[in-house]
Amino acid sequence: MTHLKRLFDIDPFKLTTHSLNKEDIRLQESLTSIGNGYMGLRGNFEEGYSGNNHKGTYLAGVWYPDKTRVGWWKNGYPDYFGKVINAVDFIAVDIYLNDKKIDLNHYEPTNFYQELDMQHGILSRSFILSVDNCKFKCSFKRLLSLTIKELALINVTVEMLEGIGDVTFVSKLDNHVHNEDSNYDDMFWEHRQSSENTVTAKTISNPFGVDQFCVTTMMQNDVSNSTITSNKSFKEFEATETFSTTLSSGDKLALDKKVVIITSRDIPEEKQVSKAIELMEQVNHYSIEELVEQHKKAWLKRWELADVVISGDDEAQQGIRFNLFQLFSTYYGEDERLNIGPKGFTGEKYGGATYWDTEAYAIPLYLSLADSSVTKNLLKYRHNQLPQAQHNARQQGLKGALYPMVTFTGVECHNEWEITFEEIHRNGAIAYAIYNYTNYTGDTSYIKKEGLEVLTEISRFWADRVHFSKRNNAYMIHGVTGPNEYENNVNNNWYTNYIAKWVLSYTLENYDKYKNETPVSISESELDKWEDIINHMYLPKDEKLDVFVQHDTFLDKDLMPVSDLNKKEVPLNQNWSWDKILRSCFIKQADVLQGIYFFNDQFTLDEKRKNFEFYEPMTVHESSLSPCIHSILAAELGMEEKAIEMYQRTARLDLDNYNNDTEDGLHITSMTGSWLTIVQGFAQMKVFNESLSFSPFLPTNWNGYAFHINYRNRLLHINISTDIKINLLSGEPLDLSVYEKNYTLKKTLTIDLKNKGVN
Amino acid sequence: MTHLKRLFDIDPFKLTTHSLNKEDIRLQESLTSIGNGYMGLRGNFEEGYSGNNHKGTYLAGVWYPDKTRVGWWKNGYPDYFGKVINAVDFIAVDIYLNDKKIDLNHYEPTNFYQELDMQHGILSRSFILSVDNCKFKCSFKRLLSLTIKELALINVTVEMLEGIGDVTFVSKLDNHVHNEDSNYDDMFWEHRQSSENTVTAKTISNPFGVDQFCVTTMMQNDVSNSTITSNKSFKEFEATETFSTTLSSGDKLALDKKVVIITSRDIPEEKQVSKAIELMEQVNHYSIEELVEQHKKAWLKRWELADVVISGDDEAQQGIRFNLFQLFSTYYGEDERLNIGPKGFTGEKYGGATYWDTEAYAIPLYLSLADSSVTKNLLKYRHNQLPQAQHNARQQGLKGALYPMVTFTGVECHNEWEITFEEIHRNGAIAYAIYNYTNYTGDTSYIKKEGLEVLTEISRFWADRVHFSKRNNAYMIHGVTGPNEYENNVNNNWYTNYIAKWVLSYTLENYDKYKNETPVSISESELDKWEDIINHMYLPKDEKLDVFVQHDTFLDKDLMPVSDLNKKEVPLNQNWSWDKILRSCFIKQADVLQGIYFFNDQFTLDEKRKNFEFYEPMTVHESSLSPCIHSILAAELGMEEKAIEMYQRTARLDLDNYNNDTEDGLHITSMTGSWLTIVQGFAQMKVFNESLSFSPFLPTNWNGYAFHINYRNRLLHINISTDIKINLLSGEPLDLSVYEKNYTLKKTLTIDLKNKGVN
Repeated sequence: MTHLKRLFDIDPFKLTTHSLNKEDIRLQESLTSIGNGYMGLRGNFEEGYSGNNHKGTYLAGVWYPDKTRVGWWKNGYPDYFGKVINAVDFIAVDIYLNDKKIDLNHYEPTNFYQELDMQHGILSRSFILSVDNCKFKCSFKRLLSLTIKELALINVTVEMLEGIGDVTFVSKLDNHVHNEDSNYDDMFWEHRQSSENTVTAKTISNPFGVDQFCVTTMMQNDVSNSTITSNKSFKEFEATETFSTTLSSGDKLALDKKVVIITSRDIPEEKQVSKAIELMEQVNHYSIEELVEQHKKAWLKRWELADVVISGDDEAQQGIRFNLFQLFSTYYGEDERLNIGPKGFTGEKYGGATYWDTEAYAIPLYLSLADSSVTKNLLKYRHNQLPQAQHNARQQGLKGALYPMVTFTGVECHNEWEITFEEIHRNGAIAYAIYNYTNYTGDTSYIKKEGLEVLTEISRFWADRVHFSKRNNAYMIHGVTGPNEYENNVNNNWYTNYIAKWVLSYTLENYDKYKNETPVSISESELDKWEDIINHMYLPKDEKLDVFVQHDTFLDKDLMPVSDLNKKEVPLNQNWSWDKILRSCFIKQADVLQGIYFFNDQFTLDEKRKNFEFYEPMTVHESSLSPCIHSILAAELGMEEKAIEMYQRTARLDLDNYNNDTEDGLHITSMTGSWLTIVQGFAQMKVFNESLSFSPFLPTNWNGYAFHINYRNRLLHINISTDIKINLLSGEPLDLSVYEKNYTLKKTLTIDLKNKGVN
Repeated sequence: MTHLKRLFDIDPFKLTTHSLNKEDIRLQESLTSIGNGYMGLRGNFEEGYSGNNHKGTYLAGVWYPDKTRVGWWKNGYPDYFGKVINAVDFIAVDIYLNDKKIDLNHYEPTNFYQELDMQHGILSRSFILSVDNCKFKCSFKRLLSLTIKELALINVTVEMLEGIGDVTFVSKLDNHVHNEDSNYDDMFWEHRQSSENTVTAKTISNPFGVDQFCVTTMMQNDVSNSTITSNKSFKEFEATETFSTTLSSGDKLALDKKVVIITSRDIPEEKQVSKAIELMEQVNHYSIEELVEQHKKAWLKRWELADVVISGDDEAQQGIRFNLFQLFSTYYGEDERLNIGPKGFTGEKYGGATYWDTEAYAIPLYLSLADSSVTKNLLKYRHNQLPQAQHNARQQGLKGALYPMVTFTGVECHNEWEITFEEIHRNGAIAYAIYNYTNYTGDTSYIKKEGLEVLTEISRFWADRVHFSKRNNAYMIHGVTGPNEYENNVNNNWYTNYIAKWVLSYTLENYDKYKNETPVSISESELDKWEDIINHMYLPKDEKLDVFVQHDTFLDKDLMPVSDLNKKEVPLNQNWSWDKILRSCFIKQADVLQGIYFFNDQFTLDEKRKNFEFYEPMTVHESSLSPCIHSILAAELGMEEKAIEMYQRTARLDLDNYNNDTEDGLHITSMTGSWLTIVQGFAQMKVFNESLSFSPFLPTNWNGYAFHINYRNRLLHINISTDIKINLLSGEPLDLSVYEKNYTLKKTLTIDLKNKGVN
């Protein structure tokens, strides 16, 4: 990994740096993104930057269906690709010293300092410049309020250190923004109105019947200095307020900019300006200091439950906190219309708001770290989109429901046949989340109704999608892409076949259990057909190697370990032609092992070991979703070194730019991976069959680690160092097992780590 | 085939119709396309048509590299997709009667008549209208000169039959044209200059370093009637000349419009107008009648050699002549910079000018029907593009040369990974054409030098593209798309593996033969590696079924014949989702059978029969390239009924709109199929191993058929009716065999058909 790049210093609760890396501005911007679930933005500079960078402000649920053209002879494709769109730039405050625009692309600052305070959700920056015989310090601070979601606060201060000069601030709302990923440099916004302190813009119309979004932004600029001249103006897409004054050594000009952003997701266009005025009035009841204090407190409250404390390894500590910080900045379950986009508010890549990542990787974390209603909302999100999932299946001429690969509305908007049509294992993850919720919480109210409705339609999809191969006397699934997207259009992907069979079984089992309580009705012949598929599903296995086979012809490949690759060739996806990747044996992310992770209780330790030892060495982990699964399994198999290596990779994926693509934005949905690794890996927390168990180990270079979990109306604190302390902070006593020994946790349980509780 | 649609009457040498089919204007336009190798146009109406139609004028070799965006994580793709572009509309003559614009979309004509005279290359049309108490006849005639390639002649005549009225002609050159297939409705032309009788436009710039094309068009309008008023004007992209007069019953207004079109392929922009003036002066040395006569004579001369005469079946006769007419309108070998585009001058679909169709389907015809220099030019076209083919291979990280799927310049410009990267069997066809030329003509001068250069680089590609599967102790080719594009990314496509092995063998054989005469040098170790691949190439075969297997897992599919399909579901490519097509057993075009066709002498009759009987019933023939191969093999296997059915489909593919897509343009490169079917199928002409043989049969409903072939400096005429008459029209005596009996043809050979020459 020659390309690893660490821009920020190691610190347990902050990102800090004293250097401005002009070649890596995009990376620096990604890492200093902030968000509050409602909106978010990359770490762009308030004063602007004329060099190579990526401006990006994003509003949750505001998107544009961009047209895509695909192969002319291929039917079944969606009409459009839903894009996350770059919205109004509201942080902009241009700074001039004697009419010279301050732009770090053209000046070399001294004393540069940037800090993302993750504990309090505040981004700040400062530097000193010498221009025109003046020496002055510029300082910036901003936050997106956790308590008033529509509110952003920006502070810009210039302090004259030496000399005398005219300083001008131009505070702007600028909606004249483009998407980096637009196909033809088209602009996705049209002007609606602007005034001295507001800008309203609407997404351009589209031919797909998708609603246009309207967004109004209002600013209020307050300056510290009374000897200023100021001026307001506005034009299409833009409102501007200018402040000028002369500063002598020791003088300061400080601007507090408050911005509120209203979208038509909540307020119709015609009421947006008045709503913004109302909101700004409410905001003005508080001083800036009070607003900041409220925001900080809200972040501290989140950390109280969610924090994972690692002692003895600040790199690891910083990694997990960065991930939790960015994850909660993206989604904290307040708005059930939203889901967790793969880049959150940190970039445009991938498009869409909802991937199977949510069900496979995010739900396990939210189940433990948030109220169960958050997960239920995520499940309901899918249930609400069942008609669209049925539509997706129909597009392919299939029965039942196919949940989309990428979507904003439930309608598939991904446009590559090998993914759109073939990466159908995603449908299994949707079903798995229902199992996960029900099994974790013990709440059966969802599965009885909505759950079985979704499960039944997914089962109908699988039952139609298999075919019976006479030659093999088995049901097969041809033409799929498994979780390993470095192979496409394969036959009998073991993982896909396994999860399809499991969905049918789980649906049958629950239909049988709740058939008198559920609105779902399944005919006898349909049930028989499902039974037959379950009994005759082909699951490729190689007897000689004693491993499950990734897909039919995988073993015909030129098999070799990743360690045989020239280091210059990785990451493969940046160095190899697509066809070369497809032909190779190298695996992007857990595939067979993903199945073993999901259905961990259904395999023997020997099966787990053999498959891990066969597949992991061929895995390049070029999906950000890969290392955590391997770390968890490695931990279970006692491969502690491997588990720790994979933890590093998942926890510091973005901080150390492992995949050399963090400049495009952060890997938000993968960020759960570091938490999963600690809790399900190092601590070996398992919840299969409705029972909680732990089997922890302590990474050699750590002194200890501790975390909380919500579990069935209890709050537990688990602290692992020389011994394991499990505290029941709230709720009824609970049966659990540690190192396969059963306990009833009443208040505190202490178990020696070294001898695993055995005396 | 419920959708078959026949717009034109059966006539042996013409397309004629008395009806205007407003719902099928696009289809009618496609079928009445004309061309002269330099340019061509769809059968658009001179007076314009405001209804649903497709305007299209195309200039050979004039194109635009349109940008394409593909999956962001996939490397190796070309930068652009080369598009055939719609060029200046030069036939336009608007007609007004008392200021009412004549537009058949709004008026109902009587006595409508349209005729494409294929014998002489002239398109004409007439109709009678009643407007404003006037009854008048409009007549149109046009041709693209075969003798002066830059010249188009258009005649428009209005004859007043009843009443009196003002008639106005507005003759235009109009370069304000769009492509139907542009992604974002962009215009591919920019204005350069216009004058009273010229328009010059240039293709817009592109970021790919591809040359822009500049085109100047000049018109000269001559009217019959002296009592007219006329007026000239011009603006951006347009030149206009207007003629008005009053016509009483019996009066006529006739306009002869001469147009010359100059492109920067021949003449640089700054000299184009003067070149056009010079050319128009040359044209004006002749009367219109003389120009038409020269053109007709040139077409008659082409027919003298190329015509296939079928007696007793005018449908079949019309079909073959239509195909030959359109093929020669597209390409007659005059310009070695050109190739044979799949839609010729009849539409925009597919893009690009050069496909493997040329080598696989067109060269066998041009070898027989044109001077051998035409084929040599087509081979040289590929040799000239060897550096680009090397570039293509490098793009995929491979050695040697990979000829493109679609191109204008040799650089690949197709943008679907499963085709671009995987349909690599095309490389085999390029090599096969070298064999075909050498074997057919006996001329070894090409293979010794250019031929071996191309063959060696193609062999290097294959040697790098295979991998060795330890488990199977064999070389394999994973991740390919065979000729059957209804399966993608398969492993060990029998056809691809076979042709790869053959290329290596053929290269070795010729390198061995010419190594002292060729500039090519191949190392010993490379030769050894090739030998090893040849000896261990995996060729999938099923012993039980005794057939070659299309690819590794084909037999695991749900196998069923096309006859089991619901008729409403075909053509599948218009009714099924792409993934459903991929999973099905249905075959788009000959795949295993394509190999058996190419290497016919390497298989036993039993092998041919078993494979034909296995694969043909699963073949939907939705590629226009499919029926001919099956017809030829069926004829060889004595399945005369099948051979005739497939002939119908190939000969009348467009005339009867078999694939329901002729409105997009004609299937130009497939048009050789009907000729191949008659000559290689019905007459069983074979040329393997440098010896000529025939084994004809006479389709039951035909009285006879006759054709010419060029073969090794001889011109032969073959006439098959109750007996087979082979006449040597020119050249030295020739050894050949008929029904496997050897003869020396000195002047005429007559063999009884019924007893196959056996007394």
